[in-house]
Amino acid sequence: MLRPIRITRSFTQTPAGSVLWQQGNTVVFCTTSVTPGVPPWFKPDQPGGWITAEYVMLPGSTPQRKAWPKTGHTDSRGTEIQRLIGRALRGVIDLSRIGPHTLAVDCQVLQADGGTRTACISAAYVSLCDALAKLPRELPAPAPNAKFDPRVVNKDYNPAQALTDQLAAVSVGIVNGQVELDLDYIKDSNASVDMNVAYTKSGKFVEIQAAAENGQGFDRVAVNQMLDAAVKGCEEIMAIQTESLQAK
Amino acid sequence: MLRPIRITRSFTQTPAGSVLWQQGNTVVFCTTSVTPGVPPWFKPDQPGGWITAEYVMLPGSTPQRKAWPKTGHTDSRGTEIQRLIGRALRGVIDLSRIGPHTLAVDCQVLQADGGTRTACISAAYVSLCDALAKLPRELPAPAPNAKFDPRVVNKDYNPAQALTDQLAAVSVGIVNGQVELDLDYIKDSNASVDMNVAYTKSGKFVEIQAAAENGQGFDRVAVNQMLDAAVKGCEEIMAIQTESLQAK
Amino acid sequence: MLRPIRITRSFTQTPAGSVLWQQGNTVVFCTTSVTPGVPPWFKPDQPGGWITAEYVMLPGSTPQRKAWPKTGHTDSRGTEIQRLIGRALRGVIDLSRIGPHTLAVDCQVLQADGGTRTACISAAYVSLCDALAKLPRELPAPAPNAKFDPRVVNKDYNPAQALTDQLAAVSVGIVNGQVELDLDYIKDSNASVDMNVAYTKSGKFVEIQAAAENGQGFDRVAVNQMLDAAVKGCEEIMAIQTESLQAK
Amino acid sequence: MLRPIRITRSFTQTPAGSVLWQQGNTVVFCTTSVTPGVPPWFKPDQPGGWITAEYVMLPGSTPQRKAWPKTGHTDSRGTEIQRLIGRALRGVIDLSRIGPHTLAVDCQVLQADGGTRTACISAAYVSLCDALAKLPRELPAPAPNAKFDPRVVNKDYNPAQALTDQLAAVSVGIVNGQVELDLDYIKDSNASVDMNVAYTKSGKFVEIQAAAENGQGFDRVAVNQMLDAAVKGCEEIMAIQTESLQAK
Amino acid sequence: MLRPIRITRSFTQTPAGSVLWQQGNTVVFCTTSVTPGVPPWFKPDQPGGWITAEYVMLPGSTPQRKAWPKTGHTDSRGTEIQRLIGRALRGVIDLSRIGPHTLAVDCQVLQADGGTRTACISAAYVSLCDALAKLPRELPAPAPNAKFDPRVVNKDYNPAQALTDQLAAVSVGIVNGQVELDLDYIKDSNASVDMNVAYTKSGKFVEIQAAAENGQGFDRVAVNQMLDAAVKGCEEIMAIQTESLQAK
Amino acid sequence: MLRPIRITRSFTQTPAGSVLWQQGNTVVFCTTSVTPGVPPWFKPDQPGGWITAEYVMLPGSTPQRKAWPKTGHTDSRGTEIQRLIGRALRGVIDLSRIGPHTLAVDCQVLQADGGTRTACISAAYVSLCDALAKLPRELPAPAPNAKFDPRVVNKDYNPAQALTDQLAAVSVGIVNGQVELDLDYIKDSNASVDMNVAYTKSGKFVEIQAAAENGQGFDRVAVNQMLDAAVKGCEEIMAIQTESLQAK
Repeated sequence: MLRPIRITRSFTQTPAGSVLWQQGNTVVFCTTSVTPGVPPWFKPDQPGGWITAEYVMLPGSTPQRKAWPKTGHTDSRGTEIQRLIGRALRGVIDLSRIGPHTLAVDCQVLQADGGTRTACISAAYVSLCDALAKLPRELPAPAPNAKFDPRVVNKDYNPAQALTDQLAAVSVGIVNGQVELDLDYIKDSNASVDMNVAYTKSGKFVEIQAAAENGQGFDRVAVNQMLDAAVKGCEEIMAIQTESLQAK
Repeated sequence: MLRPIRITRSFTQTPAGSVLWQQGNTVVFCTTSVTPGVPPWFKPDQPGGWITAEYVMLPGSTPQRKAWPKTGHTDSRGTEIQRLIGRALRGVIDLSRIGPHTLAVDCQVLQADGGTRTACISAAYVSLCDALAKLPRELPAPAPNAKFDPRVVNKDYNPAQALTDQLAAVSVGIVNGQVELDLDYIKDSNASVDMNVAYTKSGKFVEIQAAAENGQGFDRVAVNQMLDAAVKGCEEIMAIQTESLQAK
Repeated sequence: MLRPIRITRSFTQTPAGSVLWQQGNTVVFCTTSVTPGVPPWFKPDQPGGWITAEYVMLPGSTPQRKAWPKTGHTDSRGTEIQRLIGRALRGVIDLSRIGPHTLAVDCQVLQADGGTRTACISAAYVSLCDALAKLPRELPAPAPNAKFDPRVVNKDYNPAQALTDQLAAVSVGIVNGQVELDLDYIKDSNASVDMNVAYTKSGKFVEIQAAAENGQGFDRVAVNQMLDAAVKGCEEIMAIQTESLQAK
Repeated sequence: MLRPIRITRSFTQTPAGSVLWQQGNTVVFCTTSVTPGVPPWFKPDQPGGWITAEYVMLPGSTPQRKAWPKTGHTDSRGTEIQRLIGRALRGVIDLSRIGPHTLAVDCQVLQADGGTRTACISAAYVSLCDALAKLPRELPAPAPNAKFDPRVVNKDYNPAQALTDQLAAVSVGIVNGQVELDLDYIKDSNASVDMNVAYTKSGKFVEIQAAAENGQGFDRVAVNQMLDAAVKGCEEIMAIQTESLQAK
Repeated sequence: MLRPIRITRSFTQTPAGSVLWQQGNTVVFCTTSVTPGVPPWFKPDQPGGWITAEYVMLPGSTPQRKAWPKTGHTDSRGTEIQRLIGRALRGVIDLSRIGPHTLAVDCQVLQADGGTRTACISAAYVSLCDALAKLPRELPAPAPNAKFDPRVVNKDYNPAQALTDQLAAVSVGIVNGQVELDLDYIKDSNASVDMNVAYTKSGKFVEIQAAAENGQGFDRVAVNQMLDAAVKGCEEIMAIQTESLQAK
Repeated sequence: MLRPIRITRSFTQTPAGSVLWQQGNTVVFCTTSVTPGVPPWFKPDQPGGWITAEYVMLPGSTPQRKAWPKTGHTDSRGTEIQRLIGRALRGVIDLSRIGPHTLAVDCQVLQADGGTRTACISAAYVSLCDALAKLPRELPAPAPNAKFDPRVVNKDYNPAQALTDQLAAVSVGIVNGQVELDLDYIKDSNASVDMNVAYTKSGKFVEIQAAAENGQGFDRVAVNQMLDAAVKGCEEIMAIQTESLQAK
């Protein structure tokens, strides 16, 4: 039911994490860049670091070219999506353990055939694993905007253990009355409901977003069927993530 | 469990619908303006009209003043919210029945104490009822951008019947392990999950958005408990809406 | 001649001052928020605080919906008006007496039927009175960007006495050759001159703005007649302000 | 009392009107460009044309460089000023007589030493005279957006007679208790009132803008004294304009 | 001397042309999207179509993350580069032969290690070949904004022959007094001159841009040496392009 | 072959350098403003100062009015040009010798008849000479953002010697097969190649930009002919610059 997934880690070398994620005809490219220091709005004594996510669709990612927005680099749909991605990632990372670093997860859609936002979450998790593995094991040097006393040993600092859980996401919907997993664009256009679920190895949800489409609501039975399918789909994706992460 | 709700219809007279909605200390002001014609991207033979939603927080709506964004009039959170409001409304309106009109639902937060997005959806429904009641019963004159043949009687046109269902929304969360309905700001800040649900009179969901907060995921049991509470809350709100709509 | 005025103080509770001002069918909502500290461009040894004003028309405030501007949150007319409001307020406040605080006066037009800019000035004065009454009587703690030595007692600091005069504003015009006070939209559209006057209890002008409309200039006699009417109107408004302020 | 004025007409040749206006150390460069057609918001049967004004300060016009605004090309002060200039010009031009043309008056401040907005109005009048003299005497060909029937002779069309009056403007203020005409920057900074007046040959005002400065209001006596001085100043400027216009 | 080049055509399937171009550690992704119709500023009787180019660096393309610009999607350097790319492409395409189509060439830098702008030009040429091969051989249907008379056979229309020449580009510089071809980032940072050359199969230049770096000018001898090296480099690249294009 | 050049130094008095440069019908106005301190991105121990350039075309500079861009103050062509001007100037100035100052060179096109970018470079050089002559001969006081120890005598500081070479620029092209120097608009529109060259007194190039126009490439012979003409043109312009600079 899940479309075939192909993960290419270290697709580029500049960022700490760089993942090309192909899921059916959907292709997303996800990088994680590490910058020393924390955002300016951190309180002086706030420990740890921060993580942000951005989502853009490249102009050639759709059959009819998607022009860049007039102002900014992503449109209102992209804004909604990158907030979803950021929240999902913050659900599985203990920011107090990454020291004064800012992790920027940049998700670029190279080809859009449905399910790009959930593919980005799944890819971002892999990219994050690679990035955190490159952070120094020692406590980092003090960074701009970060309150940091080098004389105090921070026992909590351990980027390798900052990820508290494994994370994957998948889309699910109801097409012609049937629950369908991992919808491509055609199916998505014909669905009466569209649900996106981010789920963890330990069996917890971090995000559920379900929306009626085409003027049709959905009942409690549909919710349950979709959640069942999504959990199964996320578990499959996590197995593929694990295989890829163990490969190198 | 639901905070006290007070609805003032026709708070102002300029727009077709104008509702002041107070729910606990949350105050939102929601107007529905009707413009003849359809958006420029409508296809030439696309029947009916369109509905949009915008959400802004006024600067004085929060204890610490919320400055207007540098560019535009709403920030990324507001963008996410107004997309949610628009989708929820489109879930209960048959746009083919409103003729070539564009309905603009403008939601302004005057005071924010949690649950502003769901209050806006509930208020927007009332505002929409008032606005649709003012649309002409006769087929409207042809409008800009609208393909319209006055010789053909459009039996489907009936704005009073354009609303296919009644709509309300409420927030629900888990605070200290307990399911809580209609969270105020303090409770919302302490919740481990935050769920927003838009639900209809006929027992259908149109939107479910649940997000883990403070790094804690939630399990299937929590999903079910929250949906139970949300459905009950929405039913109560719909009763209050109905009472208000029958008053005049 | 003046349209009926109704003032609701503490319309909301979040900001320090919150006034709903109805004048005929014109409805403006004016809040004053207090932020510790001064603007970044203050000179290091510049005493006191600052006050700013913003003016926006909500989309539903006009019969034909007024869309938000493409960039920013107010258009060029709004920019002109908020500069007028800010100057008028700065004309009656001794900024050296408010300590290192920034007062933000936000004027929102809920319904526009002429005279919104002068209604905002009159409402802002009431909102400012309420806000200043909430500032601490003691010297405030040092704030960001403010040079402040807590060992030195600042005898000038007394927010309750920071307002040096009472302020009201009104519009006046010449319609069909007759001087008319407090023009609604219809009269304003037919006026040959439009004048806005901000005037104080002690009998001083702080702002006069008169503009020929519809290609017709105005002579010295008209100037004098309009000023006479405006002074009388402002005095009436100040009586209404005083009554409202004494009510609580 | 008026600072020396030097007018260079046809300073450049590209636009229809091009005036370099030096008044003391204030130097403004004002061009009038003519574009066939009317703005898109003109009603289909609206006769005549339109006029707009823009005002920018070049970065080198002030001792401390004035950076371009982050967005757009003029700041909020410039926005307020260009609205004043546009209104003043529309006060002396019969737009129904200029046919379907849009006149764009662009005012650039090359050196700012007080009174730039009034210098721009005075200069724009001269620039407008030159531009109108270049419009064809015959009825123009139909233009984009303009309803125009070439078979009907439009007897009202006569660009040379479109200007209904002569226009000049000047600033006046009260410095150290004395009324002063045509304030330079130093005097302007020390004034307790600042008034800008646009006045016509036939003895009509088209704009009066008076603002209290430095927290000091002004009384009716001051208003009268300033208007007296302004009228005299405008009359002098009109004589200089006339001399320049007759020179070629 | 040239870094190893690897060309992957049809890297994605949505756009008409899609090329992944790796040159040393520089990786660019170039797509060509075809949209029916011509830009709105085309004159009514202007034959043929148009081509545009855009250039963006993805945030993860540099070791230190390159944030998206605050407004828009490319910065001033990107603006300069995309103008260069567009001009170079327009130098080898006969736009009158592509019918009423707009070709959008989107160049995205995935990894930046010097020479990204010239890599984009070389990649864009390949992408353009693939895109033009997919345009219909028959005269296209009339498109928006295009004057088009289907009764007239347009003998000039032949997209396959629209490319008038083959195009490649390369960077060249002088490092430590030696001419170096195809500079990576380290060499580029140490160069005293940086030259970018776009050159064709028929031995013509379409673009030469040479700039002194680090405050050192360059003489005529250096110009000649750099042009010699660039021509040789472009010829090598064109051989690699041809090999790739013949592969399918 | 070069069009007549007329240089007016100190055209205005506010900025440190102010040059009106007329070359044929092209008129540019170039100012150099000096601001104490260095840009925020300077490294703490980075010596010397910085120089920037901006280029705008005033709306009246072209026969058909050139509207200001919707966002910002210059368009993509202007962005490309101001980067060229800035690089050219940085090619002849030793920034370590100007102390902690930022020089802002503002180029405004008053009338455009071809060759505006090269006229700006030539004018900027004169403007820069005047500005540097006004910098204090003594070491300047410490400035914001600048690491500066007043106890250490900086022997390198000497603004009068900061210019390492004399700079001029000229355009050259091939029109009807003939090399032409200093093209006006008509010639430029008909050229098959357009080359801009910035050249110094000591016989070095700092910028060469050549672009094929109208789909025609150019060969090596053309490059050489154009460089020959450009060098001769720049030498003539430098003689005129020198004459102007010696005049006062």
